[in-house]
This record gives sequence, C-alpha cells and structure tokens, in this order.
Amino acid sequence: MNNPQATSVASAQWVDEPQLRFLRACQRLPVDATPVWFMRQAGRYMPEYRAIRDRFSLLEIVAQPELAAEVTLQPVNALGVDAAILFADILLPVEPMGLKLEFVKGEGPLIHDPIRRLADVARLRTLQPHTDLGHVMEAIRLVRKELDGKVPLIGFSGAPFTVASYMIEGEASREYLHTKGMMYADPQTWHAFMEILSESLAAYLVAQVEAGAQAVQLFDSWVGALAPHDYAEFVLPYSRRVLQAALTTGVPVIHFGVGATTLLPLMKQAGGSVIGLDWRLPLDQGWDLLGHDVAVQGNLDPITLFAPTAILRQRVQDVLQRAAGRPGHIFNLGHGILKNTPVENVRAAVEMVHELSAR
Amino acid sequence: MNNPQATSVASAQWVDEPQLRFLRACQRLPVDATPVWFMRQAGRYMPEYRAIRDRFSLLEIVAQPELAAEVTLQPVNALGVDAAILFADILLPVEPMGLKLEFVKGEGPLIHDPIRRLADVARLRTLQPHTDLGHVMEAIRLVRKELDGKVPLIGFSGAPFTVASYMIEGEASREYLHTKGMMYADPQTWHAFMEILSESLAAYLVAQVEAGAQAVQLFDSWVGALAPHDYAEFVLPYSRRVLQAALTTGVPVIHFGVGATTLLPLMKQAGGSVIGLDWRLPLDQGWDLLGHDVAVQGNLDPITLFAPTAILRQRVQDVLQRAAGRPGHIFNLGHGILKNTPVENVRAAVEMVHELSAR
Repeated sequence: MNNPQATSVASAQWVDEPQLRFLRACQRLPVDATPVWFMRQAGRYMPEYRAIRDRFSLLEIVAQPELAAEVTLQPVNALGVDAAILFADILLPVEPMGLKLEFVKGEGPLIHDPIRRLADVARLRTLQPHTDLGHVMEAIRLVRKELDGKVPLIGFSGAPFTVASYMIEGEASREYLHTKGMMYADPQTWHAFMEILSESLAAYLVAQVEAGAQAVQLFDSWVGALAPHDYAEFVLPYSRRVLQAALTTGVPVIHFGVGATTLLPLMKQAGGSVIGLDWRLPLDQGWDLLGHDVAVQGNLDPITLFAPTAILRQRVQDVLQRAAGRPGHIFNLGHGILKNTPVENVRAAVEMVHELSAR
Repeated sequence: MNNPQATSVASAQWVDEPQLRFLRACQRLPVDATPVWFMRQAGRYMPEYRAIRDRFSLLEIVAQPELAAEVTLQPVNALGVDAAILFADILLPVEPMGLKLEFVKGEGPLIHDPIRRLADVARLRTLQPHTDLGHVMEAIRLVRKELDGKVPLIGFSGAPFTVASYMIEGEASREYLHTKGMMYADPQTWHAFMEILSESLAAYLVAQVEAGAQAVQLFDSWVGALAPHDYAEFVLPYSRRVLQAALTTGVPVIHFGVGATTLLPLMKQAGGSVIGLDWRLPLDQGWDLLGHDVAVQGNLDPITLFAPTAILRQRVQDVLQRAAGRPGHIFNLGHGILKNTPVENVRAAVEMVHELSAR
C-alpha cells in the first residue's frame, strides 16, 4: 500500500502540525485545532467551479483527471479547509457495472434501464475499479502530487443502499417504492444485487486508497428512509462488507447517513472509524448514543452558512462546545453545501472553527 | 359546542362498541380492538376517488361540500377503517389569508407571491374560518350526518411550520432555504408571520370542531428538517398555541411529524393527546421516549402495503406487539398512503389489525 502518511500519525502525543489535524482527529488523537472540511466543498457555489462547469458537464469533468484534480483543489486553496475530497459522483460505478447513466439538466441523474428483476442483476458485471474508473485513480494521484502533503485527500463512494436506490428507481426518489418493494417482495433479487454491488463498492474504495486516498467516506445519503429492522436485515451486512474492506487498508473510514438518527447504533455496528452526524441530533447526544470509542463528524445545518455572521459564529461555537473535552471531532456540515451559499461565509466558518477550537 | 360524542367516552370501563374504539384509544381507555385509520386514506389509489378526480380538480372537490363529503366517506365504506378524516388540503387557509394558490399538474402546490419580507406579512389577513372556509365546515356537517355515528370524523390542519414553509418557499422544498433563512436573518418577519399564521390555524381547528369534527390532527409533515434548537425557538411556541386552542375544545388532538425522532420530546411539550410516529423509530421505543402519559399513533412504513400478505401481516403484528399491554394506541401508517397502493392490501391491513388485536 503506497500510503505512508496514513500510518504516520499514530503517536498519541499532541503535535502542532495543521496538515495532520484531520487524520489525527479521525484516530481520536489530540489536535492543535479542530479540523474542518465540508461535504460538497467543490461545487456550484464557487465561482471557480462555475467557470469550469460552464464549459464541461459533471461527467466530462470527472472523465478528465486534470479537470477533476483542479476542481478538487479549488476549495483547498480558496477556503483553508483541512482536507480535500476528491471531485467525483457516487454514481460513477453505475456505467461500468452495465447501466446507462445520464445527468439531465435541472433534474439530476437518470438511469434508463433500472434493476427490477433477477435477470437485470445477472447482466451486471463486478466493477474493476483500476481499469473501469482508471481516470478517478489518476485524478487521485494528480491531487496527491499537487497537494504535496499540504492537507490529506479523502476518497469516497456511495453506500450500497444509496447507490442501489438509484439503480433500482432509475432516478432520485422520495418514497423508494421499487427499492423497498424489492426487499419485501423479491428478497432473492435484492440480495443478489447487493452482493455484486457491495463487492464492487468495496473494490472501489480499496482502489482509491491504493491510488493515494488517505481516508475514505461512505455516503449513505438516503438511508434515513429505512426503518431500523429493514436496515439491519437488508442493508447492514452489505455496508459492513464495504466498510470492513476499506478499514483493512488502514486508513480512516467515515460512515455517513442523513436523517439516520434511529439507525446510528446499527451504522456503528456496520463499521467506520468516524460516524458522520446530521444536524437533527445535537452532536453531544449523537456521540453519547454512538459511544465514545468512535470519532464523529458534523454537524452544522448547511443553511446556517446563509445566516448573518453573529448567528453563524454562535452555531459553530455550539457544535464545538458539544464536542469539547474529547479528541475525535471533525467539523463538517450535516449534509452537502447548498448552491448559492455565499463563499465568504464558508471561508468565515473555517476560520471560526480554527480560532474557537485552537489549543 | 355541538359535539356530544366527543365527551361521551370518558368511561374507564371496557366497552364493546367498535364505533368508539378510535376516540377511546385517543383517551388511553381500553378498547375491544385497536382502532385503525390511514393518513391519505381517501386518494388516488382508490378507483372511486379517481373516478371523481377525472372530472374535478382537488380544489374543485374541496370547494363543493357534497363532493368533499363523498370522497371522505369512500374509504370508510370500502375499507372498514375506524375513523373518517375530512378530505381537504393543508394549504386551504393560504388563499383566504391573501396569497394565490395553484396546484400544477404533476408538480404540486405553487404560490406565486410567497412571503419573504415584513411587508408581505403585513398584507396577510387572519383567517375567518367559518366564512372563508365555510364549504369545509359544511362538508364536516354533511359527513357527520352521513356517518350517523358509524365512526368518528377527524378534522385537520397543517402545522405552522409546515404551512409557513409552503407560504415562504412558494412550493415544496427539500432544503427550506428561504424558511430557515428568514428564521436566522429576519426573525422579526418570521415571528410576525408565525403570529398571524398560528392564530389562523388555531381558529381553523376550533371551527372544525364546532362544525362537528370529533378529533383533529395537526400535520407537521416537514418539521423533520429542523434541528431541535430551531424547533424549540422558532416553532414550538406557535405549534403550542394551535394545539392548546384545539385541546380547549375537549376533543382529542393528534400531533404528527415526519422524520421527527429527535423532536419528539419537544413536540410532546407543544401538546397533543396523541403523538403520531413514523416508521423510523420502533413504536415501543417512541412511546418510551415520549412517556406513557400520551397516546401514540402509527407507525407502519406505507411501502409495507405493497408487500406480499405474509410480510404485511408480520409487520402489522410487530407494530401491534410493540404497543401491546397498554391502552392508547391508534394504528396508522408512518405517513400517507402512496398512490398505486393496492386497495386490497389496505383492506387486508385493516382486517389484520382488528383480528390480531381483538380482546
């Protein structure tokens, strides 16, 4: 594994090296200031990003490693965040697995031939990440080179449930009718699908670490739609497989869901060095619920970045206070940055986190 | 108050009167079998309803008391549920308060002149429900007459946050950018708006009881988007005002939110004889969290109504078992019935609830 930095921070001693904040906090080691990064920190709210998106589609950007690397680095340079996260999309594995993926302007992803029957699963192939998504691996290598140790790079994948829900529904969904319907009415197809999907996503995360990602995050963005008993039976074993494969590489693994308060103990069982929390649960309560043998990431409401500075500062302070006195907190939002978020507020939030948490 | 039935069930004695199941359970009195009704039980999944909707729009149906009454009664006759719920829409107060409401085919509600500034609030008028929504009151009187004591009739209103979010965003929203933005950046406008809105919705629920509704439900469908501290500061006082006004009439008041696990203790503080739970939290855990001095309603995942009968039965049984041994459970879904739900499964679920819970 060509990833020396991932294991170079195992000292329990306090160190004044800002570039190690993020990785140390993931391992619940003391840090000089709380590390902060933001989900979707590269995106439409940034003028530098819009300048590139005016010329290229999302899929065109991720297909060109130089462009993907450039977009990945934009927020690191503009905001002063403590980690870069690879610019990519959770649906990239869909096409190499055999479905046709399209992004329809103003409507989001569209898959014309969704998975509904066992025969649809039989036509899928297991992702070979190094060849199928070689451009992603190349982007990781480019970003690592450009960053030159300044901050670590996070890779990521969608979690089996969230990716499956797109591949089954064919588009974003509110009800998950076909997805849950398959669990209940055709569990054989569901389990066959989750086998190949979790194997593919596990390989994808491992490949990202091999290419140079120093941490990875598993995004289970839509898992909050599930009742705990459905999560336990139909999802947990497959999330666990992906998470355990990633953990075996030795890098920190962040496990994140939205609206998943009642699933948190099960998500911890599935695995992760860090559990991501959204804003629906105060951070201290979430950490108590999970237990303190795991790090936590979160959990400012993304809308707070539209608030006047005094309120933003008060909310940042509140999150930091709820995490205080215990190493292992990575500051983040409870979900991705929204479009139209004022860039100056995002930059201000980064400064507030560092200033208010400085040892 | 011309509502004798609402107070006729205050006996703590067990009674074998199926028509009283629902009202007795709301008061945590023993019942012969668990009462069951379904949110959105009148709707597109029923052929009888579609036959009417082919000829009339939603707003045309609610504007004609005979039609609204007919649609309200359809599921009572077809399904054997233990309560009727008035066919109406949570946005009916919007037009009489001064905004233009439209339902765009396939897209849902649209308000062209949403509330964004204090001047917009100043133009609103307080709802005068008996005159502004006299057709709703007339529909209630018609339904009561037709039901003739067979099952009780539930009235309802949207809760201040949920109605406000439509009136501020102008349409359904995922992020609630303008709504939360107003809370943070312009609290004066927010509070002024919530004053007139909660006064209007309180009057609306009281008027429905005066017209004959034997219980009312406050739907806070989108409240799950809020962090607890925002709910406590910006929403709770106004929900409390509406709920307390309704409770003063003496009828049971159901208080329901979706994805609101972390808000449940605060929602109980705001008020309600019954708290509605969604499927994200097992019913027994939700009831423990709330305390047993309140009744609970819920909480089958609406998708379960698409499952094979054996699984449906197992899930119905599970919900009933989690409520067993304690009076005060009303069986329902965790949110509304989805379109395309097979009617025969809904009917089967009603029978299962009655059979599996029969004393």
